[in-house]
This record gives sequence, C-alpha cells and structure tokens, in this order.
Amino acid sequence: MDLPAPQTYSPVTFRPLTFHDAVPRFLSGEDTPRAYLERCLETIAAREPEVMAFAHLNAEGARAAADESTARHRAGVPLSPIDGLPIGIKDLYETHDMPTEMGCELYKGNRPNRDSAMVQALRAAGAVIVGKTVTTELGMSHPGPTRHPFDLRRTPGGSSSGSAAVISAGMLPVAIGSQVVGSVVRPASFNANWALKVSQGALNRGERQGYSQSTVGVHAGCPEDMWAVAVEIAKRVGGDPGAPGLFWTGETAPPAFKPRRLAVLETEGWAAAHPGAIAAFEQALDALRAAGVTVLRRGDHPLLEAFEQRASTAMEMSREVVAYESGWSVANLMRQDASKLSDSLKARFKVGNSVTLADYRMHLLRREEMRRAQAALAGEVDAFIGLAATGPAPVLGSTDGTIRGITHTTGNPAMNTASSCLGCPVVTVPIMAVDGMPVALAVSGQVHQDERATAIGRWIAGAVPPIMV
Amino acid sequence: MDLPAPQTYSPVTFRPLTFHDAVPRFLSGEDTPRAYLERCLETIAAREPEVMAFAHLNAEGARAAADESTARHRAGVPLSPIDGLPIGIKDLYETHDMPTEMGCELYKGNRPNRDSAMVQALRAAGAVIVGKTVTTELGMSHPGPTRHPFDLRRTPGGSSSGSAAVISAGMLPVAIGSQVVGSVVRPASFNANWALKVSQGALNRGERQGYSQSTVGVHAGCPEDMWAVAVEIAKRVGGDPGAPGLFWTGETAPPAFKPRRLAVLETEGWAAAHPGAIAAFEQALDALRAAGVTVLRRGDHPLLEAFEQRASTAMEMSREVVAYESGWSVANLMRQDASKLSDSLKARFKVGNSVTLADYRMHLLRREEMRRAQAALAGEVDAFIGLAATGPAPVLGSTDGTIRGITHTTGNPAMNTASSCLGCPVVTVPIMAVDGMPVALAVSGQVHQDERATAIGRWIAGAVPPIMV
Repeated sequence: MDLPAPQTYSPVTFRPLTFHDAVPRFLSGEDTPRAYLERCLETIAAREPEVMAFAHLNAEGARAAADESTARHRAGVPLSPIDGLPIGIKDLYETHDMPTEMGCELYKGNRPNRDSAMVQALRAAGAVIVGKTVTTELGMSHPGPTRHPFDLRRTPGGSSSGSAAVISAGMLPVAIGSQVVGSVVRPASFNANWALKVSQGALNRGERQGYSQSTVGVHAGCPEDMWAVAVEIAKRVGGDPGAPGLFWTGETAPPAFKPRRLAVLETEGWAAAHPGAIAAFEQALDALRAAGVTVLRRGDHPLLEAFEQRASTAMEMSREVVAYESGWSVANLMRQDASKLSDSLKARFKVGNSVTLADYRMHLLRREEMRRAQAALAGEVDAFIGLAATGPAPVLGSTDGTIRGITHTTGNPAMNTASSCLGCPVVTVPIMAVDGMPVALAVSGQVHQDERATAIGRWIAGAVPPIMV
Repeated sequence: MDLPAPQTYSPVTFRPLTFHDAVPRFLSGEDTPRAYLERCLETIAAREPEVMAFAHLNAEGARAAADESTARHRAGVPLSPIDGLPIGIKDLYETHDMPTEMGCELYKGNRPNRDSAMVQALRAAGAVIVGKTVTTELGMSHPGPTRHPFDLRRTPGGSSSGSAAVISAGMLPVAIGSQVVGSVVRPASFNANWALKVSQGALNRGERQGYSQSTVGVHAGCPEDMWAVAVEIAKRVGGDPGAPGLFWTGETAPPAFKPRRLAVLETEGWAAAHPGAIAAFEQALDALRAAGVTVLRRGDHPLLEAFEQRASTAMEMSREVVAYESGWSVANLMRQDASKLSDSLKARFKVGNSVTLADYRMHLLRREEMRRAQAALAGEVDAFIGLAATGPAPVLGSTDGTIRGITHTTGNPAMNTASSCLGCPVVTVPIMAVDGMPVALAVSGQVHQDERATAIGRWIAGAVPPIMV
C-alpha cells in the first residue's frame, strides 16, 4: 500500500479540536452541538480508513445525543460545561449501546448492556459518546490496527491507541484512555495530546478494578477540556471504591501556576531516551531556568537521588505486579481458547504464574517505599518534570526489545512505569517536536495533586517556547 | 404448608460435616471423595426441597471432579489438603460451569463462562464445586427462598443464606460466602457455623471488587476445614489487587491460643440484642474469666471506650458507603428493567443518590478513624469478643425495622457492621444456644491477624463449656 507522506508536526501550528470555546457559540445559536458533531464525523469519515482509531462508531446514537444537547443549549439549560462534547471511550470500558471487545478476539461481539461508571457520568453530563476507541489486546502489549495520524508508518502508541490518535487526527476533542503501565502518557506524547493520568483511584474505573495500579486518563486537545471532563466524571461517580476521588477547587481548568522549584525525574526511561528527545528536554529546562524556575537534577538533592533509585525498578515491578494480578482472569481466557490470544499475552501469563504471593508482597513493599520516597519530596519541589516518552513514535512493527516474551510494539513505556507504580498524577504538555513528530513533557505531582500538576503544566505551556529539534 | 416441628439446637450434640478427618480414610482406601460426595448429595436430596439452599446444583460435574480426586487419593497424590472437598459457592461469584444469578431476576440465566479467582483456586486445589448457594438479591437486603434448616419458619440469615444453611443442614462441610455489612457473620451465627470473615482484601474477590468494605468468608463445620480452605485459596490467587493477601504461618488450622486479655466489643448491636443472647454472652465471659482471661469492658479502658464511640456509627456509615459505591452499577439495572428489582434495592439506590462525594469522603475519614481506634488497642488486648448476631434467627418475613426504605428481613446486622467497616478478621465460634437456636461468639482481631483470631476462637471453643439459655 502506498502511504501518503508523513505530516510534519509543529507545536507552533498544530491545532487540535477544542470544545470549551465552542460553548458560547452554542448558547448564542451561532453553532450547535449537532453541527460540531457533524464536523467531527466528517473528519472521521476522511481519516478513519487509514488511521483506524475506532473499534466501533455509533454515529446515529451520537447524532441523537447531540440533538438533545442542541435542544438544551437552545433552551439555555445545558447539563454541564461538557454538554454536547463528542467523546471517544477506550474499548476496555463498557457502553450499553456498543460492543466492548477489548482488542481481544475472545470478546468479539461482547455486549454487556451496561455503562461503565465513567460512561454513565459522561452521559449524565450531556457528553456525546461517539464510539469505542481501539485498545491493544486487553490493554496489554499486542497492538490493534491503529496507525499514527501524522505518519501512517508509525504506531500511535498504546494501549490507549485510538484515544490518543483521535485527538491528533482532529476527529474528536476528547477521548478516555487508561493506564496500567504506560498506556495514557506515552500515546499522549506521541500524539501531541494534553492528557491527564489521574491519581490512583481518582476517577471511577467502574467494572475495571482488577489492577492495583491502573487509572483512567483523559486525552484532549487542550487543558480546559481535559480538566472539565475529569471534574464532570468525578462529580457524578467519584473515584474507585475506597478512594476519595479527584480533588478540584474550581470546575474550570486551574489557572497557570508558576512553580518555584521543579525536580527532573529521569527514571529508567532516561537510559533508553532518544538523543533528540533529550536535547529537546534540555532546551525546555533551559527555558524554565530562564523564566526563573529552579530546576533540581538528581545530583542536586539526596532525597531526589533516593527517589530515583527506588523508582529504578519500576518496569520489572510493574510487569510482575500486573501479570500476577491478571493471572486468574487471563487463565479464564486460556481455558476458553488459548489460540485466540497473542503470544505476548501468553508470555505475560507465564510471567504471572512465576510470581509467588511472597514475590508479590515484596513488590508491594517496594512500591510503597517508592511512594514514600516521592512523598518525602512534597515540601521540596512543586512538581516533577520529565519526558512523557523515550522519543517520538516508532515505526509500526518495530519493537523495543522482547523481555521474557513480552514485546513492546507500541513504543517503550520506560518513561511511564514509575508514575504508574507511584499512582501519582501526570499531565502531558505537548510543546516539543523531535524529527517532525511530537514529544511531550510530563509534569507529575504528589498523589491527589492533579489540579496542581495541571496548573503547572499550563504555566509551562505558556512560559516555555515551542521546541523543535 | 404444614411445617415439621423445629429441631432444637444443642452445641453439645450438634455434629456438622467435617472433611479434614476424612482424608486419612481416603488415603487408606476405606473411604473415597466420591463416596463422601454421594453422602452429601443424599442429604441434599432429603433436605433441599424444604431448605432451598441452592440456586444451582451441579451433581454431575461434582461427581466427575470427585472421581478425579478419588483417583488422585488412590494414587497417593492429592493436590492439597482440600482435594475432594465438596464445597458450595455463593451465587454472587462466577463459575464457568453454572449460572451466576445473584438472587436477581435481571441475572436469570447469566452464564459468564468464567471462574472467579477463588473458584479457580479451589478447583486447582482439587475441591469439588457442588453448587451455587442462594444469596439475597445482589447480596443486599431482599431475601432468597432459603429457610433455616433447624426451623423452617425462620430465616437462615443473609446475604450468605445458602452458604450458612448448607452447613447447619449437614449438606456440605464448607461453603463460600461474602460480607459487605453483615452477610457472613450473622448467618454463620444463626446456623452454628465456624466462619472466617477474612481481613479486608485477604482473599481475592475476583470480579467482585466493587465495594471498599467487602470480603470473602468461609463457612464450615469446623475450624480445621475453615482455615484450610482459606489458605488454599490464598496460596493460589492471593488477595485483592494491592492487598498482601491472607497471612498464615502453618497450613493446618493454628493450634488453640489462650489469650491473656480480651476486650468486649458491644457496638451498636448491643442495644438491639436479644436478652437471652446477652445472658448467654455474659455466661461465656464468666467462663473466660474463670479460665484466667482478663476481660475488659468499655468502662475499663479509655481507648476501648474511644473505639466503641467511633464504631457506633458503623450502620449508617456502611449503608451510605455501600449505596454510594454500588450506585452506578444499580443504575445500569434500573435502566434495564426497574420492575425486576426489589423495593428494598430501589430504596438503597435512592440512598446512594443522596450521598455526595463530599459525604462519601467524610465517611472514609470516619472509617479510617474507626480503624485507627482499633489499631490503638493492638498492644492492649489479644482480640475482641462479642456476639456474632443480636440473637437467634428471626422468623421468616419479620423485619428489624425499615430504615430509609431498606428492610432487613434476614436478621439485624447491627452486630456485624463495625467489623465490616473495620475490615478486620472475624471468626464465629458456635458454642451457644438461645431458645434452642444457635448464637455464636464473634472473635475479631487486628487487620491481618486472621490466624491469631482463629487460634483464639479454637481456644475459646475448648475452654468455654457449651452454653444453653
């Protein structure tokens, strides 16, 4: 197949869809949620055949919901600031009006007739559920069909492949993803998304409570839409059972907040990082310093070094924790029909079987120590800053190595594993281009400081000039 | 219908089924797991028409599994100490070879083709899954058909109605239950079960992770079987995601451990307790003192009084926490067909909708304070002792009052709500009869001290003479 030439990404000129700025026009009658949706559907019609971001599209259901939203806006009584927002849902979460196939052949045609908690909240807020976005197999390694909208030769990242790609393709202003290891932050980086991976438990995962380190993520074209969606979900269905849910002090995105001190978080990803990504990152740090922010490197503070050391085993820890926790559910699929599962999933199952309860307890202890080491810096720095991915999106089919049979074909999650283990909030700030493809900064904060991380991310986006290397 | 005269329960003469003592005969060839199962099936055939403890019975599947176990014992290679154990599974948990109907019309015919984590573990250990036991509707208030085996005019308790009743009916030696508010300990008390409600998260709830205070319980005829089943599950599938799982220092039930000091835990249940139950309990305390145990009452220690005060809101807290956490999933059922849900469930849904995220956070804080108050006594007492229910099983159709539309028709959970909020282990010790019906002692411990609570329960069963009032 002859692929079109890649589109060169520039953080200066790239304009993803935004929604919050359309609402005044809905209320004045210049525009309508239905018309907004139709523009999305046109872009989807044009780009979906080559991008393949959707596992299922529900144009008719979306049109009906958009019409209802249009009527509410006409009457001046929208249900929420996201009433009328067209949104995609990662195909791991249940939707009563669409299949939930999880990128797994064994779930083909699965229709549970339920809405996941967050989907229910979105509908109640008036959002328009447009479709289910492609995920890797069960949200793990084996990739779905989605290709990068800027360069069809590349992966959009995973596991929230479709949710990240609908943003960069301009198909939708917001999509829901989820992260266990690196599934929100990495594809968000590849696709120039603003994304918020919330604190552990901060947004209700509904039926998907099977992992101890797994959170919902919101992929968006701008921080305003990202934050509004997170808040509207939390308001209606809160967080996971036992968690206090997302904290917010205002319903609109927090205003830019200038940090006094940021700590660079290298993690294991540093050693694997693309030289161009490191060069771009160092330029960003220079800009931060020039703006008057103190930037701490690991050599500058013993607690930061201690934190880095404890975070340095995050990849192995995540792999074993996740494989152990999913063991029983994957065993059910193996019993049903192992031939319909990828080799990578089967390798993961094997890893899970090798982890004993004693091993698992040791991982929990080390994870807790890692979290303590981050908390020990709570008064020392306003937030942490790092690369959101090791580099730009790799070409399809390439792999960052196969470890114990598990192959990463949607990019290397090494930059993301630490924050997954930490359960801390991460905001991606898409202001860098490397070789004409996006690479984002990752601003991470202490647990529950999702709002603070968002505010700092917004400040950085305003204070650091776009970087192209 | 003419019901037979009630059977008078005596803790002296009552002999439930036990399994651990049959294993040597399996190995010697005098008995076989298949023959053991057939004896269970005979009792089931005789008693099930009036007791109605099973939502589904899988005699053929059980026979096949028992035959395999028989062959393993014949070859001298049982898979575990519970290989061949016939066991019932509360019908909230999934089993690939039986429906999972959850006592709810909307789940009629539900066959998810999956084994819950614990069911998988039990099969791997060689246990024989005999059937699904009746639960109240979704494990909440609305009762199933089960009647008390000792007196068919009475409720067996709930929500683990069938799992408790199969023990008192002598149908099975062990059954799995679960508790969110009072669903293991209360029916265990009504049915003279040994039961272990494990520490929060100590046994893997599999697909049922929707509540922050909910645990698996093991109902049994003796502490040996109770403990062995808990350990064999933990070995294979551990605890909930993020929890360290059940702790054990030996695979057989811990030997009796004589406590030096026990604290009486009254909780809200005390005010609602049957005078006969209180009289029996005071006799038990006298016997403990006579055996040399120091018994602390709430007036004896300010920390104990502080704990009681914080535990005194457990009922209201549980009701709101549970209603809030289940809100989104019950909303799905309401959308499907509200006419198929009980009024009690609908009332609960309404309660859930009245709880805001701010209310929920306040409950989490108070629950945490309650847990701290229990932990503050960790060095002061070896365990806590109380009544496992407010009295003997009430007659069917009676109610302990309707609060905000939620009706308790399977007995009053007031004695059980505190330990549910605490997430602490509770062991029921069936050594008392009140008006010819069972009432158990409840031994509760600090979180993760399931083994210690079991050891103390065993000591009490040996040291306190059976009590009949």
